[in-house]
Order: sequence, then C-alpha cells, then structure tokens
Amino acid sequence: MATRVIRDHVFFAFSPDLQPAIHVKPGEEVVLETHDCFQAQLQTEADLITSLDWDHVNPATGPLYIEGAKPGDILRVDLLEMKVGEKSTMVAIPGEGALGDVITEMETAILKMEGDHLVFKNKLRIPKNPMIGVIGVAPDSGAVPNGTPGPHGGNMDCKLIGEGASVYFTVGVEGALFGAGDFHAAMGDGEIVVCGAETEGEVRLKAEIVDLPGLPTPFVETKDVIATIYSAQTTDEAAQGAIHRMSQFLTEQVGIPLNDTGMLMSVIGALKFCQVVDPEKTVRFEFPKWALEQYGYRLR
Amino acid sequence: MATRVIRDHVFFAFSPDLQPAIHVKPGEEVVLETHDCFQAQLQTEADLITSLDWDHVNPATGPLYIEGAKPGDILRVDLLEMKVGEKSTMVAIPGEGALGDVITEMETAILKMEGDHLVFKNKLRIPKNPMIGVIGVAPDSGAVPNGTPGPHGGNMDCKLIGEGASVYFTVGVEGALFGAGDFHAAMGDGEIVVCGAETEGEVRLKAEIVDLPGLPTPFVETKDVIATIYSAQTTDEAAQGAIHRMSQFLTEQVGIPLNDTGMLMSVIGALKFCQVVDPEKTVRFEFPKWALEQYGYRLR
Repeated sequence: MATRVIRDHVFFAFSPDLQPAIHVKPGEEVVLETHDCFQAQLQTEADLITSLDWDHVNPATGPLYIEGAKPGDILRVDLLEMKVGEKSTMVAIPGEGALGDVITEMETAILKMEGDHLVFKNKLRIPKNPMIGVIGVAPDSGAVPNGTPGPHGGNMDCKLIGEGASVYFTVGVEGALFGAGDFHAAMGDGEIVVCGAETEGEVRLKAEIVDLPGLPTPFVETKDVIATIYSAQTTDEAAQGAIHRMSQFLTEQVGIPLNDTGMLMSVIGALKFCQVVDPEKTVRFEFPKWALEQYGYRLR
Repeated sequence: MATRVIRDHVFFAFSPDLQPAIHVKPGEEVVLETHDCFQAQLQTEADLITSLDWDHVNPATGPLYIEGAKPGDILRVDLLEMKVGEKSTMVAIPGEGALGDVITEMETAILKMEGDHLVFKNKLRIPKNPMIGVIGVAPDSGAVPNGTPGPHGGNMDCKLIGEGASVYFTVGVEGALFGAGDFHAAMGDGEIVVCGAETEGEVRLKAEIVDLPGLPTPFVETKDVIATIYSAQTTDEAAQGAIHRMSQFLTEQVGIPLNDTGMLMSVIGALKFCQVVDPEKTVRFEFPKWALEQYGYRLR
C-alpha cells in the first residue's frame, strides 16, 4: 500500500530550510492529501474572504525528501491518480484578478459535486477536470511563497498537470523537498478571478531521478503532448521564455534542426496561457508527442 | 451558383477608400479565391524571402460591398466551405518572429498536400486544419495594412476562423468593404515564426447584417464556442481586452450577473493566444456555447 502523507503536513513557501514530512525512496508510491487553497477556512457561502487568515492560504502538503536526489538532478513526478473533494469553493474579490477593476462585491460560492459534475448556483453542471495548481521542489536558495510560480514550479496553475501527467523539475537541494497543493476540480486557462474550483483532494504519485540532463524545467508530459512552462512579470516575457525553452529542447535534446524546429512550432505547436493573475504570469508551450516519435525521440 | 470573386481582385490595406470588387446582397453566397500571403512569389524552396516584393505581401481578396450595410451595423460572415491549395509554403527568417533572435539562416520550405495531410520535409505528416489569417472590414477612417490586426479584424491569425465558423464585425463604412486572405492549411496558436502553412485557397461565404447591437467585435462563433478577439502592442494588454470584452458580452448581452460571469470565465472559459508575431499581438477569450444555452441565450 502506498505511504500516506496527511494534510496536517503543510508548508507555505518552497525553501531549502523546510523540514521533510517524510523520506521516500525513488519510485515508491505516496499518497498526498491536500487542503484546498484556503486551508478549509471558507466552509459556507457566508464565509467571505475578508475573514481569511492569509498566513494559511495556499498550503502545500509535504515536503517529501526523495532519497538520493541531488542538486542538478532531474526529478520526474508521475501523477498516477487524483481525487478531488465533494465540494469546491470559488470567490469573487474586488481589486483582484483580471476582472478586479470591475468586480465590486465580494462573494463566496460553494459548488457541490454531483457525479462527475460541479453544480454552479443550481444553474450549470460543469464537467470535472481535476488539476494541481501548486507543485514544485525547493529552490537552491531563498524562500518562494506557494502563491508564486517560478523555475522551481510552485503556483503554475497549468491545466495539463492532472491525473496521468508527469512533471519534471530540476532538483535545487538534497532530497528535492517536493510538495503539492491547491487542487482544482476544474479550471480554465487564464484563471481569470484568481481561483478555479478550489478543493481538497489527494494524489497518488511516485518520484524518480531520470537521466535527462539539460531538460528545460518545469516541463510537463501528458499522454499526447509535452510542454515547457515559464513564469515572468509579463505574459510577453513568459511567452518568450516558454517558446525559447521548447526550441532549446527540440534542437538540443530531440535533435531537430533549428529552422525545422521553428517551422514545426509554428504549424503544430501551441503557445498557451496557464494563468495571468498570480505575482508572476505563467505561459506554456505545447508540442505533440507524435511528432517527437517521428524523430525517434522518447522521454522514457 | 455562388458568385465568384477571382484572386486578381486584391488589396493590401483595409480602408474606406477601397473600390469594391463586387456588390453583393445580404445572404448571397459568394466564393472568394485567395492568393497565399506571398502572392505566389515563393514557388520553390530556392525562392527565398529576400527576393520578395514586399508591396505584394498579405493580399486580401475583395473588397465586397454588402448592400445595405451601414456604419455601426453588426455584420456576420458565415464561412460555409473552405478549400486550400495543393501546396503550402513556410519560411524561416532571421530577426523575424518569436525565434528571430536565434534563427540565422533564411529558408523556404514547400509542404505538399497528400490526402488530408501536409508533408513536412519527407518526415512528418501534419493534419490539415485550414483557417483564415486575414479577414475584416474597412475601418471608418485611415488605412490599416493587411499585416496588422485591429478592431476591424485584419491579420488576427485566429485558429477558430475556419470552415463552419462565423465572424462578426462592426461595419465602419457604407457597404462594409469586406475582404479575406492569408489562408493557412494548418497553424498553431502563437504563429511562432510568423507563418503557418501559407497557401492559396477559396472560401464560400455569405454576409448578413444581424440585430446584435453592442456585440463586442471582432467576435467569432464556432459549433462549440464563442470568442472575443483583441489586439494590442503587448499580449498583456491584448489579454485584458479580450477578457473585458467577454465579461461585457456575458453580463450585458447574455445577462449573467457580474460575479457569476467572472467565476464562470475562470472555471470554464479559456484565454488563448492567437499570434505573438504581428505588429500587434492577438489574444482571444473562448467561452462554451452550452453554458450560454443554460442562460437561455442564443446568437441566432
């Protein structure tokens, strides 16, 4: 049976100074339980964001100390199975998010799960599409609050990061100090009002060191695509970062000539928004795996 | 039989001063033939972009004078059927596009169509996915080169604009002066090296004035989604524009309360890149039609 890490083991910033919640072997299956991003502080629609203790927002569960992981290693985390809670929370906050300039009334909405759908205001049934907002490893120095994305991962809010996906990180410190939280039962690209359907949940995963030196991380792999992820102050910079990292991967790792790389990125690649509302904006560049296979390249 | 506008009728800037190629009745079917964006100047892989006459780049066919169209009207153009040519052209250009800083060698590639696939360098078979890059109406004043997107439409490079889609514009001058060109047999979101699979083609379409005052244009409708489109100097500004126009549409036209609009845009909407390489960058915001229907709203 997989080792379980209960949701009492939380941290609020990725940092080399974190104390491990647990030591795990590479390849060992672990189940992480997570709180929602409000650490369960908003239980009903009467609980407004004004009542929040902001020191308890965006908890991640962990960190996991992966035995043998050393700085510079590439860590692959396979998300084997993901469960989300029976209810999700959404909020509207004046002054926050991409519509913060027009939203004037604070509101909390609770969305209950019915089968595979979330019920929104007794009006809409929204298909469940679980993904993980915060996922990462400790940076080699400094502390990055969980609300912020960066080279270490963190609050990337990337829709690709769901059940069946693998996420690759460059290890910053011994043991990697991996953690995850901020699950969404559903979210759209952009995360317009700074929340998806925020829910508690659990993920069964395993983490391993892989021999992919120079892989531009954070990097995601799903059944159909690979993606580079980049976060920056503006979406223009984030787009440039994601594009150049994919170009670097396709030329240096896959061995596609540079001009062919550019043309293929233009005709079968896809530049996509992850989120435009966090302290840094996150953009990904997706490329289809079927094309990599034509060049004889496989990640595993 | 539909009236045919041959590809000799081209223009290179949307402007109130254009002479109509043809007058058509609202709802009358018309077939527009188009050149590729290079006006057929690159015929083989030996024809490099250095040899281009830049006065003949991005031709649009038309313009069509739509009888009865008046400034301020909303024009809906239904793209009933679309054909693309037997070959497509791609180019790599040092200094141009999102990888222009790393591309050092100019190159032209010809991609032949085999069945429903484009063959790339005898290596990859790329599924055909035809779309229209340049489509629009004359602005009420000034001349906008076809390479530039804007409130009138133009070079939006939006993947949604293909067979079966409808595009809505606000009429700027009497007769609307509609035109289209810059067909792509396939393109990915972002248009990284400033080209898709550039091809000649033809589109069968009809244009009508519709009673949708205040619709935030340009606006696209496909089988599954609606989308607002916005172009600006930066993708950050373009994203803000597309987001706010969708919020405006959902609150003012559909009648969804503002907070619900924001939450739904966050959980089932999608902010997407169209292109990041033209004189203005273009972003769209997609929202699913099934959700509009739950609020009793239909565009037609």
